[in-house]
Amino acid sequence: MKLSARNQIKGKAAEVKKGQTTAHVRIDIGNGVTITSSITNEAVDELGLKAGDQVIAVIKASDVMVAK
Amino acid sequence: MKLSARNQIKGKAAEVKKGQTTAHVRIDIGNGVTITSSITNEAVDELGLKAGDQVIAVIKASDVMVAK
Amino acid sequence: MKLSARNQIKGKAAEVKKGQTTAHVRIDIGNGVTITSSITNEAVDELGLKAGDQVIAVIKASDVMVAK
Amino acid sequence: MKLSARNQIKGKAAEVKKGQTTAHVRIDIGNGVTITSSITNEAVDELGLKAGDQVIAVIKASDVMVAK
Amino acid sequence: MKLSARNQIKGKAAEVKKGQTTAHVRIDIGNGVTITSSITNEAVDELGLKAGDQVIAVIKASDVMVAK
Amino acid sequence: MKLSARNQIKGKAAEVKKGQTTAHVRIDIGNGVTITSSITNEAVDELGLKAGDQVIAVIKASDVMVAK
Repeated sequence: MKLSARNQIKGKAAEVKKGQTTAHVRIDIGNGVTITSSITNEAVDELGLKAGDQVIAVIKASDVMVAK
Repeated sequence: MKLSARNQIKGKAAEVKKGQTTAHVRIDIGNGVTITSSITNEAVDELGLKAGDQVIAVIKASDVMVAK
Repeated sequence: MKLSARNQIKGKAAEVKKGQTTAHVRIDIGNGVTITSSITNEAVDELGLKAGDQVIAVIKASDVMVAK
Repeated sequence: MKLSARNQIKGKAAEVKKGQTTAHVRIDIGNGVTITSSITNEAVDELGLKAGDQVIAVIKASDVMVAK
Repeated sequence: MKLSARNQIKGKAAEVKKGQTTAHVRIDIGNGVTITSSITNEAVDELGLKAGDQVIAVIKASDVMVAK
Repeated sequence: MKLSARNQIKGKAAEVKKGQTTAHVRIDIGNGVTITSSITNEAVDELGLKAGDQVIAVIKASDVMVAK
C-alpha cells in the first residue's frame, strides 16, 4: 500500500499511553527528535502498538505549518 | 510565544515552490529526513520564506497517524 | 503496512484533476457515494494515480464531523 | 445551511461512546461501510446524539488521503 | 442541520479569491478580526459564494491550537 | 517566532478543562465570540495554561470551512 501523504517518517514507538478513548504515542525518529501522535485507543489495539515497535509517522503536507 | 502543538521540529527550508494560491515547502530536518508542508502563498510572502531559511515544522499531535 | 486511521474506505478513482500544486481526486466508494480528496500533485505522480485505479480513501476519526 | 465541505455522507449513528472529554461515534453509511468520528462530548450533548439517529458525516477534501 | 464542530462563527465574506483548484476566502467576523479559509473552487461555486455574503466560519476544536 | 497559520486570533482563556489525555480550552476573543480548542493535557501543562491567561487561537486556513 502506497499513501498520498507526503510525510512518512520512520521511527520507533518510545511510549504508548492510553486515555479513556484517545491515546498518545511518542515516536523517536532519531537524531534526538520525537514526534507525538494522538490516535484512538482502538487504533492502538488494532495495530497491537507497544513501546519498541518500528513504526512510521504519517502526516499530510496540509497539516504542517511553518514557523520562522 | 509558546505553542500548544506537540511537534515543533527544527530544520532548514530546502525548497519553496509557489502555486497559484498554495505553496509547498520542503524542510530538511537533518538525518536525511525532509518534511513537506503545504501553506498559503500569502504565508510565504509574510514570513519572507525562502530556501536556506532556518524554520520550524509545526504539527498538532492529532494530525499525526501511525503506521506499522 | 497497517494504519492507525480509523477510516479506510475502498473505492475506485473516478476523476483525478491536477491544479498548479494541488490535485482533486474523486473516489467512487459504491452505493452512489463519492468521496473528494485534495492531495498534492506530487502524490498523484508518485502513486501513478489515474481514473479507474482501485484506491482507498484514508481519513482520521478526528477529521470527521457529525451533522444532524 | 450549506457547507463548503466536499464530503457530506448520509448514514445512521450505530454507536456513540463518550470518553472523559472526547466521544467516538460510528456512522453506518450503508453498503457495509462504517465511518468513525471523534468529536467532543459537548457536541454529542448539544446534538442530542444517540445510536439510531440519522446523521451526516462531514469531511473536508483536504483531510482525505489516498492509498493505492 | 446542526453540526458537531464547536466553532461556528458568523461573519461576512470580505474576499473570495479562486486559484486553479483551491480558493481562499476572507471572512470578517467583526471587532476587526478576519478569518481566512482555504476551500475548493468547487465549494465556492456550489455555495455561490461571493464577497458580501453572510457566512459562518466552521472549525473543529481539534484544529485549534493555543499560543501563549 | 512568526507562524504560517493564517489565523492567529487574540483572546483570553475563559476555561481550561482537562480530560484523561485531552483538554478543552475555551478562548474568549471578544465581541461575544468564544473559540473552543482541543489540545493535549501535556500542552496545557507545558504552557502553564489557566483561565485568565492572554492567549492566541491559531488555526490553519485549510482547517476552516465555510457555511452559507
